[in-house]
Amino acid sequence: MPITPEQQQEIARLREVTAPTRRATVPALEAILYEAIGALDHGFVRVVDYMGDDGAVVRAARVSYGRGTKKVSEDRALIAYLMRHRHSTPFEMCEIAFHVKLPIFVARQWIRHRTANVNEISARYSILDKEFYIPAPEDLAAQSEINRQGRGTVLEGSEAARVLDLLREDAENAYAHYAEMLNEDEPGRPRDPGRRGLARELARMNLSLNFYTQWYWKTDLHNLMHFISLRADAHAQYEIRTYADILLGVLDRWVPYSAAAFRQYRLGGTQLSAAGLAAVRRLLAGEALTEETAGMSKREWNELMALVRPEPEASDGPA
Amino acid sequence: MPITPEQQQEIARLREVTAPTRRATVPALEAILYEAIGALDHGFVRVVDYMGDDGAVVRAARVSYGRGTKKVSEDRALIAYLMRHRHSTPFEMCEIAFHVKLPIFVARQWIRHRTANVNEISARYSILDKEFYIPAPEDLAAQSEINRQGRGTVLEGSEAARVLDLLREDAENAYAHYAEMLNEDEPGRPRDPGRRGLARELARMNLSLNFYTQWYWKTDLHNLMHFISLRADAHAQYEIRTYADILLGVLDRWVPYSAAAFRQYRLGGTQLSAAGLAAVRRLLAGEALTEETAGMSKREWNELMALVRPEPEASDGPA
Amino acid sequence: MPITPEQQQEIARLREVTAPTRRATVPALEAILYEAIGALDHGFVRVVDYMGDDGAVVRAARVSYGRGTKKVSEDRALIAYLMRHRHSTPFEMCEIAFHVKLPIFVARQWIRHRTANVNEISARYSILDKEFYIPAPEDLAAQSEINRQGRGTVLEGSEAARVLDLLREDAENAYAHYAEMLNEDEPGRPRDPGRRGLARELARMNLSLNFYTQWYWKTDLHNLMHFISLRADAHAQYEIRTYADILLGVLDRWVPYSAAAFRQYRLGGTQLSAAGLAAVRRLLAGEALTEETAGMSKREWNELMALVRPEPEASDGPA
Amino acid sequence: MPITPEQQQEIARLREVTAPTRRATVPALEAILYEAIGALDHGFVRVVDYMGDDGAVVRAARVSYGRGTKKVSEDRALIAYLMRHRHSTPFEMCEIAFHVKLPIFVARQWIRHRTANVNEISARYSILDKEFYIPAPEDLAAQSEINRQGRGTVLEGSEAARVLDLLREDAENAYAHYAEMLNEDEPGRPRDPGRRGLARELARMNLSLNFYTQWYWKTDLHNLMHFISLRADAHAQYEIRTYADILLGVLDRWVPYSAAAFRQYRLGGTQLSAAGLAAVRRLLAGEALTEETAGMSKREWNELMALVRPEPEASDGPA
Repeated sequence: MPITPEQQQEIARLREVTAPTRRATVPALEAILYEAIGALDHGFVRVVDYMGDDGAVVRAARVSYGRGTKKVSEDRALIAYLMRHRHSTPFEMCEIAFHVKLPIFVARQWIRHRTANVNEISARYSILDKEFYIPAPEDLAAQSEINRQGRGTVLEGSEAARVLDLLREDAENAYAHYAEMLNEDEPGRPRDPGRRGLARELARMNLSLNFYTQWYWKTDLHNLMHFISLRADAHAQYEIRTYADILLGVLDRWVPYSAAAFRQYRLGGTQLSAAGLAAVRRLLAGEALTEETAGMSKREWNELMALVRPEPEASDGPA
Repeated sequence: MPITPEQQQEIARLREVTAPTRRATVPALEAILYEAIGALDHGFVRVVDYMGDDGAVVRAARVSYGRGTKKVSEDRALIAYLMRHRHSTPFEMCEIAFHVKLPIFVARQWIRHRTANVNEISARYSILDKEFYIPAPEDLAAQSEINRQGRGTVLEGSEAARVLDLLREDAENAYAHYAEMLNEDEPGRPRDPGRRGLARELARMNLSLNFYTQWYWKTDLHNLMHFISLRADAHAQYEIRTYADILLGVLDRWVPYSAAAFRQYRLGGTQLSAAGLAAVRRLLAGEALTEETAGMSKREWNELMALVRPEPEASDGPA
Repeated sequence: MPITPEQQQEIARLREVTAPTRRATVPALEAILYEAIGALDHGFVRVVDYMGDDGAVVRAARVSYGRGTKKVSEDRALIAYLMRHRHSTPFEMCEIAFHVKLPIFVARQWIRHRTANVNEISARYSILDKEFYIPAPEDLAAQSEINRQGRGTVLEGSEAARVLDLLREDAENAYAHYAEMLNEDEPGRPRDPGRRGLARELARMNLSLNFYTQWYWKTDLHNLMHFISLRADAHAQYEIRTYADILLGVLDRWVPYSAAAFRQYRLGGTQLSAAGLAAVRRLLAGEALTEETAGMSKREWNELMALVRPEPEASDGPA
Repeated sequence: MPITPEQQQEIARLREVTAPTRRATVPALEAILYEAIGALDHGFVRVVDYMGDDGAVVRAARVSYGRGTKKVSEDRALIAYLMRHRHSTPFEMCEIAFHVKLPIFVARQWIRHRTANVNEISARYSILDKEFYIPAPEDLAAQSEINRQGRGTVLEGSEAARVLDLLREDAENAYAHYAEMLNEDEPGRPRDPGRRGLARELARMNLSLNFYTQWYWKTDLHNLMHFISLRADAHAQYEIRTYADILLGVLDRWVPYSAAAFRQYRLGGTQLSAAGLAAVRRLLAGEALTEETAGMSKREWNELMALVRPEPEASDGPA
């Protein structure tokens, strides 16, 4: 359970209080403000603050006085235009802050996005909770045999059981020794008065990368979309993709026009190389092109064909 | 007049609308939201959006669930501690957006602060208004004779009059030719059908650096304070200092504890060099120190003495 | 003439000195180091320092000990792979510094790229030279009638002459008054001892946006390519495109594999939207598609057709 | 041993090759280029590339054509002036790249410095080596009893032995299970053909935070000094301070004038608050000040007294 009853109560208390504001507000985002959206086995994402809406993007693009035009259709078209032509600065006018609980190995990927503000719980000051990530059995993938960074099919049977046992036992073990080395008075774990206890900043090094950490993470709309485009991608590791998918859902609530344009021109779109574009032109002109006549490598040719001439989905019916 | 009646009406319309929000709100900032605070002869600063308050700084520092502790005195002390020890990331959790109208030469200094989001009116798309900065007579300073970048005393008499005439006439002239080259249909300035008109992106190059531009400028609280500390400083040019002083006033309204700590530990504080610190120690130990025995350059010694042994203010009364 | 004989001499002196280094060196870039490449009528670009080469990109991608693999073909393929999959951090390992002289209105566009280091000549300290940009007659474009930010065809005859006269006269005038207000002792322009002279930081506001400024500008390879992709684009203003084209030439000398990949996957490639990709698939599957059946707006449909079914170039032969 | 014989050979090979360059070179830095400077038990820092020197700072401050003035004393004074007045942009003109091997918990602190370029070894692609940090006995500090984030005195006897045993056994254990879960063919550790092996990106989560990672880290001189000022500070954790001290040694070799000014105005200097400055003034004017009459909190007063009236060092001689 990612959230304790005390935390749930505190969230409920926060949600009860409203105040009038002259700022742009987004009811669909207010509806989930402060609430914890579960992620993996113990993680969560909470929207804790936001600033701006689709209208702020429009207003910045127009550097005008109001909240954009009266006609909704014009705002939507302008946002699509900005996205299509990569005019990114108007999207920087909106800002959002999240409270995220996530395994440390996910945090290490996440923090590589530099254009954000971060305050993480510090294990120099605080004692970390005993919470670690154990993959669900269906996520326990073998190493891919064709892709050095990827996952293959799911492990099964005794091999899967053994892996889950090892991960769980080692994390239990690591935490028990962490607590022993700290030797602090904790509920149900009294201090041994005969020992002094290792400094927190040292003891933490015994914890493994699947332990959970948490942070406040704040970024602007442009960089949020950039994060999602990289981390909700099929090449991203499953665990961070879980978080990116949640952020994409938040995006839909917060700025529906920007989110629609983002799906149309980024997530659902594609990039063609110079050679790829030339090949598409020749194919459309009726040429019977091959990898050789296109002058492309086998790998790039196959990727292009998979993109523009995808196989129909296998049907279950009779041939 | 920096704001037209139409703009003032639009601002009034924006200010009328309020909506309930679960986010932190700051009534003292809501009180001036969207309103134009005049700067120089035609400029202004408007707060158009904000996110977070002193409590958000505290919450980020604690990475806790609530809006900080119950006791106000603890929040204030924590914020002072963060400022004193240069723990800047909690201050990055608050964000603010301004609409600013400012002369281009001020904008060129301002834009050097890179950690901000900016959308400026584009003279490739739009025709700039005929508004340019002319210093007030009391700001018409001579070149300092001792400081290559500074101002000396105020110009007076016929020299001052001549400067004001030149600035005004050249700006009038530049704009008249700008409009002539553009040859667009404007109120009171019909298009000459016999000519085609120069591209806006080219015609603008005839305008001088005292013409006003405007932009949306958004930054976080930490970077806002950094901006103010550099630009509200006595070494900053008077014109940008005017804007920085307005931002400092906004800071006081928005985050009073952070603003107080900022004044105590940044604006009102000072930096001592290793040699300066050693000299202060020796002076306090009772040594009769001179520039030579302190091992400092004359300039640094004088700066140190002016700092720690300032002359009493000249009195008007009899000795 | 962008460079004075004294400056040319200083450059020659710099170029004479060589020293041995263990760092990666790029002879093709050394060949032009410090030299001024002319831009517009008085501007230039000089490469003044650099760090890293294609091998540094490869080494960072491999986080290995050497300068990459022995086989050149593998390095080239790895760089292409990184570019295709937008793995941008290895390209950040190379850095380059330029000395650029450019009109202020170009500098104002350029400075919007925030991930760079800049030191600009300050008109608070220094007196700017009397050098301003006047477009060549063939660049004197009318405002586009179909595109609010674009240029149309070239102005001609008396209209062109009038524009050139206005630009030149106003700049001459602005500078003469700038110098008069400054009232400093300059070669051929003695100080009037009866006047004091306006502070430099104020006098500069009389100069127009076509005056030249100069700066040192330093950025990493990834951000340099991003700059070029936006500013060498057909939508960029001609004047900044001139500079971006020079930077592209420098790129070719400095990191030939990265430059080739950049041309293949960025400059020469294209982006398809979700709808565009779906349309291409249906066309390749043999469907006779129209704007309506593709579900695209007229504008997007036309853009797509121009992209994938471009008109053949007009031939010189008989009809 | 942080470096294998193969790596040492590769480094020697790199160091043998020199090429002539027209760029500024720094012989004192060339002397150690590529060499590994040991840190902690298995870590190191290697300078792998650099760009610029003290002269580049001077040149950027002057936006001049050459390498600074002829007179060395003027360059030194200019650099001191820039540092004293926090003119930081000229220091951004120099860049340096390091190859660093460091424990993951140190890397997690280090990466919080956002203005840098990083390429880290990826445990999604590669199998990490079996190298983990075990503190030296004299660094095995107890938790401070007065400072929530600090270290107290050193653990001793059986408690120390127990901590070292736990850290070592748990890391050994974690790695053995990591290797078992991976089930890849490694020297001395043949693959079990009866199992498939867990994906690398999952198996790594079993490793603890004291395992070593490595990266290329590149930053500019200004941000390098900022990093050192925060991480070579007495409040920084000992382990990252070890690395910061090495970087400070590199700074001395690379840019001796900048390093001297940095020590004088940053490292060896101090910050006084408004209240602290007022108190110093009153003390110097001869007032007998106390915490109450100074209007300071007990904590701030004690900090100020420790700063300006430090206790003389305890002497070993007779009382």
